[in-house]
Amino acid sequence: MKKSSLPLAELAAERLVEYIVDNQFEPGTRLPNEYDLAATLEVGRSTVREAVRRLAARNILEVRQGSGTYVSGKKGVADDPLGFSFIKDTYKLTQDLFEIRMLLEPRVAAKAAQFATDEDCRELERLVAAIEFSYDNGTDDHVQLDVQLHSQLAKMSGNLALDSLLPVIHQSISLINRDFKGKDLREDSRVAHRKILEAVVARDSTQAYDAMLRHILSVSTGFEK
Amino acid sequence: MKKSSLPLAELAAERLVEYIVDNQFEPGTRLPNEYDLAATLEVGRSTVREAVRRLAARNILEVRQGSGTYVSGKKGVADDPLGFSFIKDTYKLTQDLFEIRMLLEPRVAAKAAQFATDEDCRELERLVAAIEFSYDNGTDDHVQLDVQLHSQLAKMSGNLALDSLLPVIHQSISLINRDFKGKDLREDSRVAHRKILEAVVARDSTQAYDAMLRHILSVSTGFEK
Repeated sequence: MKKSSLPLAELAAERLVEYIVDNQFEPGTRLPNEYDLAATLEVGRSTVREAVRRLAARNILEVRQGSGTYVSGKKGVADDPLGFSFIKDTYKLTQDLFEIRMLLEPRVAAKAAQFATDEDCRELERLVAAIEFSYDNGTDDHVQLDVQLHSQLAKMSGNLALDSLLPVIHQSISLINRDFKGKDLREDSRVAHRKILEAVVARDSTQAYDAMLRHILSVSTGFEK
Repeated sequence: MKKSSLPLAELAAERLVEYIVDNQFEPGTRLPNEYDLAATLEVGRSTVREAVRRLAARNILEVRQGSGTYVSGKKGVADDPLGFSFIKDTYKLTQDLFEIRMLLEPRVAAKAAQFATDEDCRELERLVAAIEFSYDNGTDDHVQLDVQLHSQLAKMSGNLALDSLLPVIHQSISLINRDFKGKDLREDSRVAHRKILEAVVARDSTQAYDAMLRHILSVSTGFEK
């Protein structure tokens, strides 16, 4: 690591983030080439390279070999952003993540019901059906689809911070417990997801709140020792 | 970036994290030198360097020039881990972060009151007094001390995930609103902090819950347009 170039590269990285935000570049947007970026950011090309490297490490950019540099679909959310891989007691951590879900998600469901568009409802319905299909066919897809279902509700809630945070919490629970073989929760979840969907489609916030609270309490017991 | 070394470096980085967790290295622990690490991880020294670089980017390690590589005090929590610097509507984001605080922190205070040791109470008292000192002397210290006060309560709550998450939420609010000159909340906060402290010292969970809820609702109005 060249000592002297580090603060400059950090500065260039900050400018590059500003440039992306100001231009409202969506995920998947291709950045201008190194030469043009160097001119825009008013730094040398080696500094641009180091800045891009740093932003790639933070999941803000994605370097595709031989193709160019793109705005990452991970929207700057780091892998394991909260350092959970550092916590040794994964059983306690899982319980604690469920406690957070219990506090946040009933309100998320209530707001999702309040703000749902018809298109949102169709997307929820699609995810619920895909999870059921995975249950019926004995595939593991339902794990990631479940993260998507709850992330979709977070997005629908309109809370920008929860839209970033909830996927991280769900992803953490599924990663930590990848090899966990506890109580089979598929039948419970099948019923619960349908109840949540029904409440959202009916734009019934209190029903959505209650259905989500029951779902989380029920699923969390499946992870008990 | 050397293409071929990347997956190996990532693997070495994962092994290095395991090594740190298994040995329960505390923040500030100095790692063995590159030569010994290469032997432990069964990779070459250039791969060790790349792995260290990646873990430093993730705030898991800290490279001190001329001194060595240490376990970072940031415990793997990335800078801006949830990508909030990407969100353009910072006013909405601030409101949404307060909504999360409102959902999480009353329970944090209740559990802190339940589990508080005498030493915890002394630390809380110290932070409350330091914030008052900063108010009285017109310094800006109270901003960071306030983050510390709420982080200390999260730690006392015993929830491992909240212990990582709440400092991030507080830090984000103070960073986003660095230049914000809204309603002066110092007198409100002075009273509220004393009420929370009193409830925790009395091990009164419901009182702590209520005092925290009132505090957050009151502070959040200070950020309204």
